[in-house]
Amino acid sequence: MLINLNETESRELIPGFHGKMIHTDKITIAYWEVEAGAEIPEHSHHHEQTMQVTEGTFELTVDGETRTYQKGELVYLAPHVKHGGRAITSCKITDIFCPVREEYR
Amino acid sequence: MLINLNETESRELIPGFHGKMIHTDKITIAYWEVEAGAEIPEHSHHHEQTMQVTEGTFELTVDGETRTYQKGELVYLAPHVKHGGRAITSCKITDIFCPVREEYR
Repeated sequence: MLINLNETESRELIPGFHGKMIHTDKITIAYWEVEAGAEIPEHSHHHEQTMQVTEGTFELTVDGETRTYQKGELVYLAPHVKHGGRAITSCKITDIFCPVREEYR
Repeated sequence: MLINLNETESRELIPGFHGKMIHTDKITIAYWEVEAGAEIPEHSHHHEQTMQVTEGTFELTVDGETRTYQKGELVYLAPHVKHGGRAITSCKITDIFCPVREEYR
């Protein structure tokens, strides 16, 4: 199965968060372009998640602890951990969820 | 859990394939830098895999079908499918495996 990311539709699933979603049997990969200032409120889910900032600066609060993330940094979020954040600058972020985030299909 | 990819050790796990391995509970992310001309013989494994070329050109043969992959292209490899390939140019590749590739720990 070949996926061309240049031809994959981007959807604004959260205000200011424009994502291309790739679903396999076991994972969801989300390629986000995030507008500067966009926020995602604190939330949690049963999926494990890795978040990698590939451009820009994103501020993330995990279990009450806030820090900023930049290119080259990856954060692992265990299932059910509370997290939320905001884009300090416009950002590109790659999230990997396991299992699949069915609500993003 | 914060991972700084700039400080993560790279290991030459296959000749010409230098990888930084990130393992969570459920997945392995492999960030490869591949030397031009490096080859990985045909093989298979029970893990599902996505392969994303982020720099350069990589030729991959999946189930006997050969094509080249470049930036913006992602290929999904189902469990047990035979695949192998070679770097046409020096490449950067991100692989995601599910479940964890224990032999890469």
